Amino acid sequence: MKSDNEIARSVELKKIKQVAESIGIPRDEVENYGRYIAKIPEHLVDEEKVKQSNLILVTAITATKAGIGKTTVSIGLALGLNKIGKKVIVALREPSLGPCFGMKGGAAGGGYAQVLPMEKINLHFTGDFHAITSAHNMISALLDNYIYQHQAEGFGLKEIIWRRVLDVNDRSLRSIVTGLGPRTNGVTLESGFDITPASEIMAILCLSKDIEDLRRRIENIILGFTYEDKPFTVKDLGIAGAITVLLKDAIHPNLVQTTEGTASFVHGGPFANIAHGCNSLLAIKMAMTFGDYVVTEAGFGADLGAEKFYNIKCHKSGLQPKLTVIVATA
Amino acid sequence: MKSDNEIARSVELKKIKQVAESIGIPRDEVENYGRYIAKIPEHLVDEEKVKQSNLILVTAITATKAGIGKTTVSIGLALGLNKIGKKVIVALREPSLGPCFGMKGGAAGGGYAQVLPMEKINLHFTGDFHAITSAHNMISALLDNYIYQHQAEGFGLKEIIWRRVLDVNDRSLRSIVTGLGPRTNGVTLESGFDITPASEIMAILCLSKDIEDLRRRIENIILGFTYEDKPFTVKDLGIAGAITVLLKDAIHPNLVQTTEGTASFVHGGPFANIAHGCNSLLAIKMAMTFGDYVVTEAGFGADLGAEKFYNIKCHKSGLQPKLTVIVATA
Amino acid sequence: MKSDNEIARSVELKKIKQVAESIGIPRDEVENYGRYIAKIPEHLVDEEKVKQSNLILVTAITATKAGIGKTTVSIGLALGLNKIGKKVIVALREPSLGPCFGMKGGAAGGGYAQVLPMEKINLHFTGDFHAITSAHNMISALLDNYIYQHQAEGFGLKEIIWRRVLDVNDRSLRSIVTGLGPRTNGVTLESGFDITPASEIMAILCLSKDIEDLRRRIENIILGFTYEDKPFTVKDLGIAGAITVLLKDAIHPNLVQTTEGTASFVHGGPFANIAHGCNSLLAIKMAMTFGDYVVTEAGFGADLGAEKFYNIKCHKSGLQPKLTVIVATA
Amino acid sequence: MKSDNEIARSVELKKIKQVAESIGIPRDEVENYGRYIAKIPEHLVDEEKVKQSNLILVTAITATKAGIGKTTVSIGLALGLNKIGKKVIVALREPSLGPCFGMKGGAAGGGYAQVLPMEKINLHFTGDFHAITSAHNMISALLDNYIYQHQAEGFGLKEIIWRRVLDVNDRSLRSIVTGLGPRTNGVTLESGFDITPASEIMAILCLSKDIEDLRRRIENIILGFTYEDKPFTVKDLGIAGAITVLLKDAIHPNLVQTTEGTASFVHGGPFANIAHGCNSLLAIKMAMTFGDYVVTEAGFGADLGAEKFYNIKCHKSGLQPKLTVIVATA
Repeated sequence: MKSDNEIARSVELKKIKQVAESIGIPRDEVENYGRYIAKIPEHLVDEEKVKQSNLILVTAITATKAGIGKTTVSIGLALGLNKIGKKVIVALREPSLGPCFGMKGGAAGGGYAQVLPMEKINLHFTGDFHAITSAHNMISALLDNYIYQHQAEGFGLKEIIWRRVLDVNDRSLRSIVTGLGPRTNGVTLESGFDITPASEIMAILCLSKDIEDLRRRIENIILGFTYEDKPFTVKDLGIAGAITVLLKDAIHPNLVQTTEGTASFVHGGPFANIAHGCNSLLAIKMAMTFGDYVVTEAGFGADLGAEKFYNIKCHKSGLQPKLTVIVATA
Repeated sequence: MKSDNEIARSVELKKIKQVAESIGIPRDEVENYGRYIAKIPEHLVDEEKVKQSNLILVTAITATKAGIGKTTVSIGLALGLNKIGKKVIVALREPSLGPCFGMKGGAAGGGYAQVLPMEKINLHFTGDFHAITSAHNMISALLDNYIYQHQAEGFGLKEIIWRRVLDVNDRSLRSIVTGLGPRTNGVTLESGFDITPASEIMAILCLSKDIEDLRRRIENIILGFTYEDKPFTVKDLGIAGAITVLLKDAIHPNLVQTTEGTASFVHGGPFANIAHGCNSLLAIKMAMTFGDYVVTEAGFGADLGAEKFYNIKCHKSGLQPKLTVIVATA
Repeated sequence: MKSDNEIARSVELKKIKQVAESIGIPRDEVENYGRYIAKIPEHLVDEEKVKQSNLILVTAITATKAGIGKTTVSIGLALGLNKIGKKVIVALREPSLGPCFGMKGGAAGGGYAQVLPMEKINLHFTGDFHAITSAHNMISALLDNYIYQHQAEGFGLKEIIWRRVLDVNDRSLRSIVTGLGPRTNGVTLESGFDITPASEIMAILCLSKDIEDLRRRIENIILGFTYEDKPFTVKDLGIAGAITVLLKDAIHPNLVQTTEGTASFVHGGPFANIAHGCNSLLAIKMAMTFGDYVVTEAGFGADLGAEKFYNIKCHKSGLQPKLTVIVATA
Repeated sequence: MKSDNEIARSVELKKIKQVAESIGIPRDEVENYGRYIAKIPEHLVDEEKVKQSNLILVTAITATKAGIGKTTVSIGLALGLNKIGKKVIVALREPSLGPCFGMKGGAAGGGYAQVLPMEKINLHFTGDFHAITSAHNMISALLDNYIYQHQAEGFGLKEIIWRRVLDVNDRSLRSIVTGLGPRTNGVTLESGFDITPASEIMAILCLSKDIEDLRRRIENIILGFTYEDKPFTVKDLGIAGAITVLLKDAIHPNLVQTTEGTASFVHGGPFANIAHGCNSLLAIKMAMTFGDYVVTEAGFGADLGAEKFYNIKCHKSGLQPKLTVIVATA
């Protein structure tokens, strides 16, 4: 039996422009990231077409330690629909570099039901997670600097709830003290790093309708509370515009292909335990704009992931799956 | 008078494949990152051609606070040589996101002597700095985890000299304590974050001849010292291969263009105060492979930057500038 | 109505040698600490006499915020028994400097039922708490130094449960990181300070039969656990003798007097929430050696303090109260 | 040859009241701390008698690692003067518990020229160092609490220069972070512990003329600086009275005796490297009140200790040694 890696390497990939063209995306709207990956600009989303497309959600009974195969089933289901002549597109989450690192396979399906190029998807991909990491930590840096610069005027926060993120599994960074050393190293504070999929920016980006909506959501991020118990937000820092600029490429859905050349949007990946656990709304809508059937998945088990898919993502966006598939391991 | 931004936006850019073709790079070797940026694979470097090309170094008297215009002069000189019919390529450093953020212009030249697309170059560009950040912090995480996992066997380091990096100016992260909280949060240690251009990975990547050389250099990184005062390296951690994989795209030089469409390699950016302060050796050699004249620059003043250019970069690589230009502000 | 302070100052105190003599303690066994306070050497305890004496325990229903008057009732009861011709001695806890500081009255009773000299008792008294603080922190220092000195040999503790103490209410010291700065500042660790009455040394000293018993108990203190999950004790540090020397005066009960000149032993004061919450066993036995009736008290409410008095102090020592008084506020 | 310890134990000590009487101190002014140690109240200092007494300073060439014998010479000189019929009193520093701990001999002279009871002097003595430790840390606690309580009003200090002290050599406490954990654990700050002889309270107590002078000096202690660069003092905290109360016994000089029964005042002990390095002014003046000749010493070598003795202690108090003895080891 061939390994996932061997299968991935044996596939001859189509150029991504071809894949795009095959579902009706105009060539000059395709932004290549190498030969086999592209970003498709969000302005191509067509709400009318979205309404006519059929959304299929894949969820699962409570997951086993090795995963339960939601992604593999999602891709496999798309390949099957494809085989019987349906115009189908897959819409999945981007994997995090942190937990993937060192594991074979990552989070891009398995066997003959993978999205490719697997290795690139599992490593830096189109840099979305890096952009989110930058945006998140830029807020942290500017928040701490704001406190440092306004101390003398009596400004302070009673509580800071904004931490930092890295797309690395680093147990030592979970709980830290910052701002040690000379005064110019800033105010001494407790902080910590979460993994990038746990960033609120990740959650926000995946729920945004467009770049203006993203900016509005960034402005509303609560960073902490003042001594009068009022929320202190990114808007109060006055940096929402700059942070949005850091995310202006990351917001566009990424196009790749399955082992059988099916178009697949792989975009966004908030954790299901702390956020809503699905890929980006824009990836779904882009897939629905260009496909009659769109297969997507929700993280973790149905009790958590599908529940959030329905009550957060569908509720906020008006989307409604026509079919829900529950994966079970016997 | 037009601002740098206005000039940058008024220029109609050539597709980067065209720019590549114009200097003799085969179309199918060009890895696009959007329309106007590409990575050119390092295997195209031709040592014979490098020998025949003419290297011109631009340095400066001690810099003013606003910079002294080395980059602008480098680009301008290339434009001039171009005008009189020479086949010239520019080879510059990549700017860091951290210090650039919020400033107009960044580190991509100015006026009618810029490298473009300025905004992309100044933001995430091709993700090289993000890849270096990931590789650096992955080592930090695996080092701390190694110490944590081997404590019970009596393993410990007398001194740890490996810190962490972020491409963000965050004064609060200069000096931190990590590993607080429950035992599973790891060993309590002092650490800190430098800015990504100060990463040893950045310096190493910029001095590497190819991916094998990069791997060898990564293996040799000293992370700390044992109680017997022996160096503890990345090789001892056994992770050099994995770290090199994280850098396999970052090692390839990035191709962009000047305001007049001249090919420009913008790749690598170690700080001159703590490292050698020049762009990557591969970018220089790639430029020399395809250009008769190559204009490059060294960071800071001549006493620091040019000195390091000659005594580190030239010494290690055998390169020899035919001409050195010293920029002075009257 | 006179304040506690005014009453305390209006009382003409007897010289403490006189008080001692009045209950049968030989003059030359009295160690003065100023005119009105003395230490009575532990060797005077006579187990035969202890058996014939009558112990009365004062406890309370759950305490109010301002205290419920156990100490005042204890002293008052002794004064009353005295009045009707009984030979009675009071045996109470020493107050902690930390929580007392700044409050009027402290923990030495109130009104016409106080132990005196109140101010001295509430401040440094005979230095018992200071000696316990020194002994406790000396162990902390020697433990950290042991770890520091034996690191190179692979020694380490999986878990350290020994903290530090100060007889000061300092919220900032509850949770700290130690060992920052250069390597010679020791190993970086999490620690914290409790208040001195919460020291295990305090609990131990109050349960010890004599100095040898104290030494034995000190040896058995568990400081942490090795990676093999074996306890690491003061005995392993090899410093029990030195620590016991620091406590050789502190172990002797302190003699003071009530507002009516009744002999009172005020000695030891572990908190009831984290330890057994009664004064020292030696103080009780010394009082029982020289008095027919001894009134003592247990901290907090009966459910906690009296329960511990019976199940820890009585259980360990064979003491048995003849009467228990429960103070209730209507 | 007998050890210092053996000699110390072989001496039959006089009761301290007798020693006091022998130099003219009234019996009822003597505050016993056990049989052989007493505090003599500061009000007995008589400035007229001070003027008529002869002060002898013992200093040394730069010290050897094992000390050079200033204390032993001081005591020996007094014994000699005594022998030839002079009324002489010794005035020395109190040893710190921290560095003494575990060493034989301590800082109380050696051979047949010791002050006794050596062991008590070297351990808790009359609790002066403990009282200074309490007073110092009470200020730290109240300062941090003040900052915590006034944060919401915009109060903050740009710089805090007040640390903490313990009379224990604990390398791990030199540099710490405090205030970790929940908000009620106070503000996160960098701090550290010095050894008690390095406390500013120690220096102040040793330079004070009386309790009022001590209180005035405590009020003036600078704890840090506001954002307007104004000093923030103990007076600003409003706690000078309470802190002075903690020191009301510590200010009185301690009387002990030499191996030959000579009266010796051993009181105060600031380090010479960070403070003025001599015993208390009150001890010197008390000795000069009751002795025709007073032998005292200054810490470290003459270049440091004697220099500070002349330029700080003598300058501030008007004292003037009639003779200076320089101890040299050949």
